[in-house]
Amino acid sequence: MTSEHEARYTENVQEHLQQVQHLLEKHALVEVVALHQEIPRAERHDLVGRLLHKRHLAELGNLLASLHPADIAYILEALPINQRLQVWDLVKADRDGEILIEVSDAVRESLIATMSSDELREAAEQLDTNEIADLAPDLPQAVMRDVFKSLSIEEREQLREAMSYPHDAVGALMDFDMVTVRDDVTLEVVSRYLRRFDKLPDHTDQLFVVDRDDYFKGVLPLHRLLVNEPEMQVSDLIITDTIKLHSDDKAEQAAQSFERYDLVSAPVVDDEGKLVGRVTVNSVVDFIRSESESDMLNLAGLREDEDIFASVWKSAKNRWMWLALNLCTAFFASRVIGTFENTIEKIAALAALMPIVAGIAGNSANQTTTIIIRSLALGLINPANARRMISKELAIAMLNGLVWGGVAGAFAYVLYESPLLSVILTGAMLLNLLLGALAGLLIPLAMQRMGRDPAIGSSVILTAITDSGGFFIFLGLAALLMGA
Amino acid sequence: MTSEHEARYTENVQEHLQQVQHLLEKHALVEVVALHQEIPRAERHDLVGRLLHKRHLAELGNLLASLHPADIAYILEALPINQRLQVWDLVKADRDGEILIEVSDAVRESLIATMSSDELREAAEQLDTNEIADLAPDLPQAVMRDVFKSLSIEEREQLREAMSYPHDAVGALMDFDMVTVRDDVTLEVVSRYLRRFDKLPDHTDQLFVVDRDDYFKGVLPLHRLLVNEPEMQVSDLIITDTIKLHSDDKAEQAAQSFERYDLVSAPVVDDEGKLVGRVTVNSVVDFIRSESESDMLNLAGLREDEDIFASVWKSAKNRWMWLALNLCTAFFASRVIGTFENTIEKIAALAALMPIVAGIAGNSANQTTTIIIRSLALGLINPANARRMISKELAIAMLNGLVWGGVAGAFAYVLYESPLLSVILTGAMLLNLLLGALAGLLIPLAMQRMGRDPAIGSSVILTAITDSGGFFIFLGLAALLMGA
Repeated sequence: MTSEHEARYTENVQEHLQQVQHLLEKHALVEVVALHQEIPRAERHDLVGRLLHKRHLAELGNLLASLHPADIAYILEALPINQRLQVWDLVKADRDGEILIEVSDAVRESLIATMSSDELREAAEQLDTNEIADLAPDLPQAVMRDVFKSLSIEEREQLREAMSYPHDAVGALMDFDMVTVRDDVTLEVVSRYLRRFDKLPDHTDQLFVVDRDDYFKGVLPLHRLLVNEPEMQVSDLIITDTIKLHSDDKAEQAAQSFERYDLVSAPVVDDEGKLVGRVTVNSVVDFIRSESESDMLNLAGLREDEDIFASVWKSAKNRWMWLALNLCTAFFASRVIGTFENTIEKIAALAALMPIVAGIAGNSANQTTTIIIRSLALGLINPANARRMISKELAIAMLNGLVWGGVAGAFAYVLYESPLLSVILTGAMLLNLLLGALAGLLIPLAMQRMGRDPAIGSSVILTAITDSGGFFIFLGLAALLMGA
Repeated sequence: MTSEHEARYTENVQEHLQQVQHLLEKHALVEVVALHQEIPRAERHDLVGRLLHKRHLAELGNLLASLHPADIAYILEALPINQRLQVWDLVKADRDGEILIEVSDAVRESLIATMSSDELREAAEQLDTNEIADLAPDLPQAVMRDVFKSLSIEEREQLREAMSYPHDAVGALMDFDMVTVRDDVTLEVVSRYLRRFDKLPDHTDQLFVVDRDDYFKGVLPLHRLLVNEPEMQVSDLIITDTIKLHSDDKAEQAAQSFERYDLVSAPVVDDEGKLVGRVTVNSVVDFIRSESESDMLNLAGLREDEDIFASVWKSAKNRWMWLALNLCTAFFASRVIGTFENTIEKIAALAALMPIVAGIAGNSANQTTTIIIRSLALGLINPANARRMISKELAIAMLNGLVWGGVAGAFAYVLYESPLLSVILTGAMLLNLLLGALAGLLIPLAMQRMGRDPAIGSSVILTAITDSGGFFIFLGLAALLMGA
């Protein structure tokens, strides 16, 4: 729903959160008091208690009614489950839909779990079709069927369209709130047409010019409407060479267009060039933020966003796949060390030094991969310059090997006074850094070529290689050269 | 400069990049041919060579002239230094300014290094004051002095204002291109006023209503201007309860407001409530993107963004601080192991198992920290719920310790058939996971309390703790209980 929330902006939501928490605590206190009072005879106290209780809830209800849905969503996210559901009960039913859209996936699940089918249907029916599509994966099938039935034929078509795209396609960011005009009318006519609206859809910075068969012809920025004389024709002011998105394009590509050209809205056309929808900057901002968040989460080995108040069990499950994977690679590295146990028994210093070899190469390889992944995401790498990047990264690894391997060698010499051990340590670090750089380069490039997101999973493989590789190179060299 | 680049949108910049690379290669080829031809007598060939050479350059020049500055910036980023400077020479001087604003810091440095003071001054003078402020840190002082002199008094004031904020303050995102109106006029008058503009500033979705002393009173969305009758007064349609930013606020806070309320522009007021500027969604998008990028780079231990074609030496320096820091923590961990060398000599299996204890706790602690940092950034953690989060994370660590510690214990038993060793391994993993969870919680919370960005540096400290702590707990328990 594109309602305007003029009277609901708030400069500091965190204050509101504290207010809600405060009211909830008072309320809980009163509830405890009221509970105690129901058992003894003090009827008067009981009544006061109940009134007080009611007063706090009413106060809370008023506060919530005055807040923007996005702010209520924020408050819901920051409250533990029981308080969250208390607040959710107090929210007016006609705002359920817009709030469900705003909360994170994890929290949405916890809210939807408490709602009846009727409540869910009502909430969904408050929304635009593209918003219903966002909500659909979390709704029971029966509810979706009812919602679908309640829509007009055009809306059903839109909903089908919106639901048919993966979350990283332009189609998933698209809405259908575009204002279209013909090019054979004057600005005067356009102005009169606009005045028939109660309000224009949010983020309407330009009108889309189409012909009578809905083929997209260009855009008319509102600015041009405002600064030009009413007698001028739309066709005199239309901009035809504008960015056109396609619903199958990658959303990331659309995001880069928005960033690059500072867009507020952009038309989406189908293969034949018919206008099917538009993308606005607010969904692009949400997309950019959620992508960067999921990159962060993936890097740390979290499958998805966590509701910070989800049960221990649920959170643990979110983290287990990664830990299990890492345990496997750790077992493998452990077996690599295990094959050199004889050597270690003779020279225990090797055990003390081997984590240095593995660790530094892991860090350096991670730096390489990050640079490559970023350059791939920006489209800066193509066949013409890939070779140059590879030789550069190898040169850096070589330099790092000499410098930091040298430092580590000196450190080992001071401790163990064995020149051979120092040379082996330096050599092993140099080799492992080169191995790490190669892996750091080739893994994301290979993943990209296989059509996978190079940001996901690169780091586990990388650490496995620099750990096991480092142990093998260092202990192997020692076994070979120190004859142990 | 807020010029419109209508005819310059491009759907696939990467194609243009390949075109440029192709032309540059042809050009280089012709240059080599021309060089060879200058020595022998074949005057005719020489001439053809030179003509060809010129033709390619002209073609390249035309291509560049047709591109949006942001696209030229992209192409410059993707070219190695020598080709980059060839292309930069071909760009028309009157576009230097807008392109310098678009390129990344690292690449901007390489371009500015080749420009004379006069060229730099001309480039800067093409820009708006807020853009000059962005460029200022890279310009020689003498150039900045000349630029400053060329500005009007009002512009000097704006430049001083814009340069006075740290990069993460709202003031640094602010521009001064706002259109203001009074509230005692009709829409008719406003429309006539707007028609006097050649064009409105980009991202003007609302007009700012001020009184005669520039005190901010509210906003008039262009939409309201369009859908209402010309006879209505601004004061009937003004929205007074709107979001107001302050130039000293954190930019991140403004970004969250833009996200939450789907804004396109927002007014910036000073302490007295006077309108001083505005923030638009495009600078917010750039800010969000650059923050998430620098978070990524910091996580991987890169001080700043790298020009992928910078020299090996320069890139290495960017990566050294982190590697040096990690080497120090690795040395420390090595010394922890070193104190148990006697034990390891007797039971070499310890050396093979100890990386498991350190690694899994490191991963799990990293998951905890990522969740906490994210929740802190969203403002979801306050005293009322912090304790709950701490006990939850400790519970997860306990669960992980039992499950994955148990699995690791079983793995060790299969290999070494020592029940005591297995129990020690499981116990050490449990303890180290708890230690990691505590550190993962407390480090970001402490950094936040000290007013530092918890995303920077948390992971080095964390890994140092789970590595050294893991080695100490595991080897210490073994020394104690296995009497070795």
